[in-house]
Amino acid sequence: MRFTFPLMAIGLEVAMIVLFGLLVQYETDHTIQQQSNSTKSTDAGRFIELYPLFQDVHVMIFVGFGFLMTFLKKYGFSSVGINLLIAALGLQWGTLVQGILHSHGQKIHVGIKSMINADFSTATVLISFGAVLGKISPVQMLIMTIIEIAVFAGNEHLVAEVFKASDIGASMTIHAFGAYFGLAVAGILYRPGLRRGHANEESVYHSDLFAMIGTLFLWMFWPSFNSAIAEAGNKQYMAIVNTYFSLAACVLTAYAFSSLVEHRGKLDMVHIQNATLAGGVAVGTCADMTIHPFIAMIIGSVAAMVSVLGFKFLTPLFATKLRIQDTCGVHNLHGLPGVIGGLAGIVAVAMEASDTNPNPAMQAAALGSSIGTAAVGGLITGLILKLPIWGQPSDQNCYDDSVFWEVPRWREHDNYFHEHGGQNQLEPEL
Amino acid sequence: MRFTFPLMAIGLEVAMIVLFGLLVQYETDHTIQQQSNSTKSTDAGRFIELYPLFQDVHVMIFVGFGFLMTFLKKYGFSSVGINLLIAALGLQWGTLVQGILHSHGQKIHVGIKSMINADFSTATVLISFGAVLGKISPVQMLIMTIIEIAVFAGNEHLVAEVFKASDIGASMTIHAFGAYFGLAVAGILYRPGLRRGHANEESVYHSDLFAMIGTLFLWMFWPSFNSAIAEAGNKQYMAIVNTYFSLAACVLTAYAFSSLVEHRGKLDMVHIQNATLAGGVAVGTCADMTIHPFIAMIIGSVAAMVSVLGFKFLTPLFATKLRIQDTCGVHNLHGLPGVIGGLAGIVAVAMEASDTNPNPAMQAAALGSSIGTAAVGGLITGLILKLPIWGQPSDQNCYDDSVFWEVPRWREHDNYFHEHGGQNQLEPEL
Amino acid sequence: MRFTFPLMAIGLEVAMIVLFGLLVQYETDHTIQQQSNSTKSTDAGRFIELYPLFQDVHVMIFVGFGFLMTFLKKYGFSSVGINLLIAALGLQWGTLVQGILHSHGQKIHVGIKSMINADFSTATVLISFGAVLGKISPVQMLIMTIIEIAVFAGNEHLVAEVFKASDIGASMTIHAFGAYFGLAVAGILYRPGLRRGHANEESVYHSDLFAMIGTLFLWMFWPSFNSAIAEAGNKQYMAIVNTYFSLAACVLTAYAFSSLVEHRGKLDMVHIQNATLAGGVAVGTCADMTIHPFIAMIIGSVAAMVSVLGFKFLTPLFATKLRIQDTCGVHNLHGLPGVIGGLAGIVAVAMEASDTNPNPAMQAAALGSSIGTAAVGGLITGLILKLPIWGQPSDQNCYDDSVFWEVPRWREHDNYFHEHGGQNQLEPEL
Repeated sequence: MRFTFPLMAIGLEVAMIVLFGLLVQYETDHTIQQQSNSTKSTDAGRFIELYPLFQDVHVMIFVGFGFLMTFLKKYGFSSVGINLLIAALGLQWGTLVQGILHSHGQKIHVGIKSMINADFSTATVLISFGAVLGKISPVQMLIMTIIEIAVFAGNEHLVAEVFKASDIGASMTIHAFGAYFGLAVAGILYRPGLRRGHANEESVYHSDLFAMIGTLFLWMFWPSFNSAIAEAGNKQYMAIVNTYFSLAACVLTAYAFSSLVEHRGKLDMVHIQNATLAGGVAVGTCADMTIHPFIAMIIGSVAAMVSVLGFKFLTPLFATKLRIQDTCGVHNLHGLPGVIGGLAGIVAVAMEASDTNPNPAMQAAALGSSIGTAAVGGLITGLILKLPIWGQPSDQNCYDDSVFWEVPRWREHDNYFHEHGGQNQLEPEL
Repeated sequence: MRFTFPLMAIGLEVAMIVLFGLLVQYETDHTIQQQSNSTKSTDAGRFIELYPLFQDVHVMIFVGFGFLMTFLKKYGFSSVGINLLIAALGLQWGTLVQGILHSHGQKIHVGIKSMINADFSTATVLISFGAVLGKISPVQMLIMTIIEIAVFAGNEHLVAEVFKASDIGASMTIHAFGAYFGLAVAGILYRPGLRRGHANEESVYHSDLFAMIGTLFLWMFWPSFNSAIAEAGNKQYMAIVNTYFSLAACVLTAYAFSSLVEHRGKLDMVHIQNATLAGGVAVGTCADMTIHPFIAMIIGSVAAMVSVLGFKFLTPLFATKLRIQDTCGVHNLHGLPGVIGGLAGIVAVAMEASDTNPNPAMQAAALGSSIGTAAVGGLITGLILKLPIWGQPSDQNCYDDSVFWEVPRWREHDNYFHEHGGQNQLEPEL
Repeated sequence: MRFTFPLMAIGLEVAMIVLFGLLVQYETDHTIQQQSNSTKSTDAGRFIELYPLFQDVHVMIFVGFGFLMTFLKKYGFSSVGINLLIAALGLQWGTLVQGILHSHGQKIHVGIKSMINADFSTATVLISFGAVLGKISPVQMLIMTIIEIAVFAGNEHLVAEVFKASDIGASMTIHAFGAYFGLAVAGILYRPGLRRGHANEESVYHSDLFAMIGTLFLWMFWPSFNSAIAEAGNKQYMAIVNTYFSLAACVLTAYAFSSLVEHRGKLDMVHIQNATLAGGVAVGTCADMTIHPFIAMIIGSVAAMVSVLGFKFLTPLFATKLRIQDTCGVHNLHGLPGVIGGLAGIVAVAMEASDTNPNPAMQAAALGSSIGTAAVGGLITGLILKLPIWGQPSDQNCYDDSVFWEVPRWREHDNYFHEHGGQNQLEPEL
């Protein structure tokens, strides 16, 4: 294990640089636009107009997903740190894979949409990461990133180009796909020793607050996620408005059901951190259609309800019966709401809410393809990750940062708060 | 109490969905603009142009206000969590109430300005929330949200449409209004047992750092708050510039006075977290007028000074003499600076700094109306909240998350840091 | 010391207000544009178009730099708090100094570019602050801010107007300058008692997570930093794209080398927090040139490697041999990568990657000037700061917030976590 990680990381980066040198170049329109004193309708104008939405998505990927997973008391470094690592690898690889599929043999041109799509492609891996958190080494995560983004790009191409299905907020191709891919890998990587991981599978007070940073940035910027690559004008406007109201409705319903399912009516931080976001996932597929805000709010409410119930009843069942331990509950945040989004998309298309007339059957095929490809891809990836050459992660590797990180050391009893109190001895006591 | 909260939350969300179904629809201009290949001056262009400012305001509402209140050592979940709940309810209700008042019997059209205004309307409740933090249950907060936003919308309509007063950054209609409304409710909800709350009315080291996340995002994005609904072009430009410099001056003065009033010249985190923002509040009313940057800086400095002195001398007096316990000191951050803003607005208008010629007397009426409506509305709301049907919150309900939340449990002595040190036993000691 | 700080802060703010009153005024173009129904190519349109990039830079300055330094376990208040203080002073002073140099005797007009440049000028001081963190009092920091920004503005004028060198992302004029200025001051302020500071020169688990908030916001918004004042259109586009890919490559290489240099292959949080950003610094000078994305990735990778090696081998050497204690390792994040950036700029210009044809020799002069001016300026500033009139900071002043801040007090043994556990006695134990 000593040199596997650094050598693989360097090797991957060298490969990326070589491939970028061979395949990627700048968009050339900009040079032309600049000379003709460009107005807003041009590509250059569109670049700077969409840049704030790209940055919102960027914040979701790096701060949102990164901090959402810091709720575990001893796994914050890995959550936010490995999140950064795989997102940085993923966006380079995503640029290449998606570019190759779209460029039909020509050079890949990097523009604002390809940058947004590259960020999107990393989202699938980050979702899957939530399911395998604490069961997987950084080396395995690098491999999973390479495989999953390739499979994602293939499925996304199938959905968009062959089925011609509509999935603007990627409920199916990112959220459902990422969740079921991750669950399949988690199932393969299951080992009885994981039960010992339970002692670390807890939050502390401040780790729950760190996680809320992730929740809030995801929640606020989700309208940008669902609208970033939508058609300018009316469709982009509707994607923003529908997502905004779906999320607002989602919050109230998530709080209500969280209180309802806990035995003394209290609120549970896990639900608040996750189920409040389910509305953003579920409204994704039909976000840019004329579904009316109140329908978006119904979709958000249903997603919140399903998500809370999933956390309460389904996740424990998965762990005990199916032997799939879903660390962050991605099935409840991305899996089920992603399926709801796919189904809502079929209904919306059947009721002609979209003016580009996608086919309801093709929407169903897209949902099936996203789940099926993810499950098969995840199973195969899991088996590859189990190969002994990567170094079998020991049972120690359970939500414990000290396995992969230099963790700040304290002498025993060197309690920070104690020390700190000691320093203030000169101060009058309360 | 067991079912009151979930049933009320679900009931409110169902009501919102029904009302949205009946009253709300998309802006239709977008469809037209799209066809005519829209340029920037159109509504569709304006939507995406203002969207980044909307997102800045969004961050202020959810991260800014939410984390600003996490300074209490045992009340972080409620601060950031109930903040999210009432903001999500408030933006739906605000869309409806403000929409009804502006639409003159027609359908409510949702656009970027109505979304910004909906976020604004939640700000009033979040400000009031700061005054009653730890004295109020989630059920009571839902009721207060519904009442306060309705009263706010009425007063805002009066100020803008009847008095035709100028208040672009809402010093009067949001900040002063929210503060005095909250103080009135806090006065009614006062009970002697609150004194026991003092033990929890403290920060710990890291809770003060969490609160700084809120402070900084509020501070940075305040120019967006004061300019988001300003007239495009010159006025929006001035609102941004004036707020930027008012806030910068405010910081230096707040630090100076914090050090000045503390007995050994040290800085106090409460002042830094709050008084540094007073300049944003106080410059609000006249932000879009040609007041000159150096006047904005004077306004910011005066507000900082008043705010620090308020925290030091006025808040303790309020608690002991007036029996109004202002948990977060909203009187010093929003109340007094809001009044300064209103007064500055009267002077600016009298000196003809605004080219739309509002009337100084009407500006004064707007300030009086905002404070008066807030005080009366708050008193009545407080009495409604005291009705026994909502369940009288026990004295336990004092800055203690474990009353309403499932809080991470530790076995006694199961010290996180101790544990953590234990894990690193294999590491060489320092 | 009791009154030095507040009086100096008030005095500086009064001086700023007077100077703003005499020298600064609004941009007047806006009034004109507004009447002629402005389109995007006008100044007013450009203002609101660049405003999101300004806000990204703003977040980097206040949240990015502020939280990046919170890694020290007992110095979070000073890190984020003094960061806010000096940035707020710096942006006022920067507006004046840069304005005077650019306005050729006329009034200073405040626009979006002057606001971005004002934020930039504070960055130099914040970088230097990282080198002297824990060795310097707030009073000294105010003085250093005034001197350093004046020197910076002089050097920046020399580089841009006399040498006509290209340095769009300010690798030389901000990053290298800020680092070497800070190191020179740190060298002068060295005192043997600093060794006692080592006990506090550590992170705790959650302080490292707070620092990651800073890292991520710097990382995400660096493309905005390098492109904010670039020419609209093609050059701005390239500055964004090149920085985006340089940073992505930088992450992988930083992780690889962090693991490589640690004795058991673990990752080190200090490297992850800092070296992942080196690519943004190093690509700065040539960010808006047609260097091709893969070259940007190579620059980012080299910077990451140099940065990690610097942290591992150079920083300890500096502290012991050169008696320069670089608290945050700014030499590795800003110094060395800034030099790499300057060198890459010389090569890029020599290979005619820039269409404005700067001179390679002049680029070299710019790099030399930035480092030379910084070193001399820093030495003189250090000597001024050592004057006894400012109050010699005691050896206590070592990464300990309780010297300058009212720190939350606990009675001894009043352990927060213990207490908290106690509260939950009614809950069933695990």
